[in-house]
Amino acid sequence: MTIVRVTTPGGDYPIHIEQGRLQRLAETIPADATSIALVSNPVVLGLYGDTVRSALAQTGKPVAEVALPDGEAHKNWQSLNKIFDHLLQKGLDRKAVLVAFGGGVIGDMGGFAAACYMRGIRFVQVPTTLLAQVDSSVGGKTAINHPLGKNMIGAFYQPISVQIDPDVLKTLPPREVSAGLAEVVKYGLIIDAPFFDWCEANASALRNLETEAVIHAIQRSCELKARVVSQDERESGMRAILNLGHTFGHAIEAGLGYGQWLHGEAVGCGMVQAAELSADLLGFPRQDVERVRNVVEAIGCPVQAPDLGFERWVELMGHDKKAEGGTLRFVLMPRIGEAECLDVDPASLQPVLQRTVTGDGRG
Amino acid sequence: MTIVRVTTPGGDYPIHIEQGRLQRLAETIPADATSIALVSNPVVLGLYGDTVRSALAQTGKPVAEVALPDGEAHKNWQSLNKIFDHLLQKGLDRKAVLVAFGGGVIGDMGGFAAACYMRGIRFVQVPTTLLAQVDSSVGGKTAINHPLGKNMIGAFYQPISVQIDPDVLKTLPPREVSAGLAEVVKYGLIIDAPFFDWCEANASALRNLETEAVIHAIQRSCELKARVVSQDERESGMRAILNLGHTFGHAIEAGLGYGQWLHGEAVGCGMVQAAELSADLLGFPRQDVERVRNVVEAIGCPVQAPDLGFERWVELMGHDKKAEGGTLRFVLMPRIGEAECLDVDPASLQPVLQRTVTGDGRG
Repeated sequence: MTIVRVTTPGGDYPIHIEQGRLQRLAETIPADATSIALVSNPVVLGLYGDTVRSALAQTGKPVAEVALPDGEAHKNWQSLNKIFDHLLQKGLDRKAVLVAFGGGVIGDMGGFAAACYMRGIRFVQVPTTLLAQVDSSVGGKTAINHPLGKNMIGAFYQPISVQIDPDVLKTLPPREVSAGLAEVVKYGLIIDAPFFDWCEANASALRNLETEAVIHAIQRSCELKARVVSQDERESGMRAILNLGHTFGHAIEAGLGYGQWLHGEAVGCGMVQAAELSADLLGFPRQDVERVRNVVEAIGCPVQAPDLGFERWVELMGHDKKAEGGTLRFVLMPRIGEAECLDVDPASLQPVLQRTVTGDGRG
Repeated sequence: MTIVRVTTPGGDYPIHIEQGRLQRLAETIPADATSIALVSNPVVLGLYGDTVRSALAQTGKPVAEVALPDGEAHKNWQSLNKIFDHLLQKGLDRKAVLVAFGGGVIGDMGGFAAACYMRGIRFVQVPTTLLAQVDSSVGGKTAINHPLGKNMIGAFYQPISVQIDPDVLKTLPPREVSAGLAEVVKYGLIIDAPFFDWCEANASALRNLETEAVIHAIQRSCELKARVVSQDERESGMRAILNLGHTFGHAIEAGLGYGQWLHGEAVGCGMVQAAELSADLLGFPRQDVERVRNVVEAIGCPVQAPDLGFERWVELMGHDKKAEGGTLRFVLMPRIGEAECLDVDPASLQPVLQRTVTGDGRG
């Protein structure tokens, strides 16, 4: 089994990565737990519900199961309250353990429910998408959406452990695999050049979900994110470099309407655009821009951005929450494996958009 | 100015106790705060709204004011969401500071809103009842109620400071002063015999709200609660002694219907009953039972419990959440200034109830 240790001011915990973790979930429930709350959604439960139910039954503890409706649209107070209602009806006390079993939405809501139920109960995170495995496994961010904004209500709250079974990725739609791999590549770009090289060399193995490659990618991504987050739990400074590609990416998601491109796909394309901008402003080598483009393409993400029109691009990037005081803020790279935040004059974006938007000279 | 420093695993903060603190609230807002959310209720704002508004205006920062309906019945998700709606509509960012200005309900909800808004913003607690000043100033407990239980959804979240202006107590109904003083006396009983002696000697000064006595009582109560809580932030063991009088008290509140007796009144009477039970079971001196009874009476709380009938008493005490595994658990005193938790056979309660319930030989 591969273990990554995460150290944060809010607590230390292990990430266990291993084929067949689902079957061994009973090991992850502390002996003094009075009961278990299994929080998931109908899609995940349809595929793996029986496996997890029989694994948790080995603890001999009562299991209260809550199936929340699937999808970001349901990451709200109504779903959260469904968890609270169910746990209180079943009489779960503050020594219960919550198992959040699903993708990012379930992790965010399950974690936030655990943070608030009786002022905090323990929770185990079992992420079932590649994006959730490499992203939300580390950092302790939990939240629900509010009609006036995404992730506006939440908490920093750490799980007691994260359990990653790479086998569950086999039922993941290929687009979601590619979207998750964009975040994997991102860690190499911002902080670990040799890992970027490795991703480059293993792009097709990753896309084909070859187990050894996938486990290494998850492990290294978690290690790298943990390194960033341990220095900056509450996202004041360094953690911002995790947003490489996100300013462009958010503009794509918002410009096309959320749900058209997956978040990871938009980030993948946004990283190509950030590399282009880095070349213009920070001397990032032109040949490395092509390497970024080639890797993003090899993992199955789009490398050409939609044509939103220059004004709309700038407007959408300005509305990104990472922008402060009206300036456009980007995570850029002086070279592969290094990243910094920079305020950029919108005029600088024109040539980048010309080179990266569909139909404008490429493609 | 009197300052009590509170140290907890979740952070350190000062409690400032001084006449006229309300007028000087601007000092308590950090320079880097982008804006202020003032969370209060119509009663408190009617009395002190203008004072606080002009004090906060001195910061030059925008102030978003949220008036929540008054009372425990409104300590729910609807009120909490009213805070979130308002803060998001006004565009408050994660560098905003929330000022929770009111009694325990406002402190609980304002603190929980601060804990969750954008995963946590800073908050300043300005308690306006004596109970909130001596109880919820220390401990970091925030929460809302759920239809299936009180304080079921919440967080441990510490303010950046607590601001106590004893002048606000002058508009507090006398019954609420007495109820708050019951908690003051409690700290002496469980942990500080000399402070109990002092309360005994100053009972009428306290009841008459003589400033010097009140400031000392608040200071010492906060110090003593901080001592207990710093050793046990998440209420696993030692913190339980803070529940002296609460098992009897909860039975009174629930038996008569919540709102008939104030919580502090029920705790006051419950402490007399706990002293009686301590005499029977732990050799607590009989003459000290009379001292407890006399102090509770002198601060204006009832010393005779309502006649609920023995079966109902036991039933109501069994439903107290501090009871585990069906036994009746009490905080009892071997002597004044010392407390411990003890599982008690319900039969032992009969003589205590005979001596403390209205019309049964006393009264």
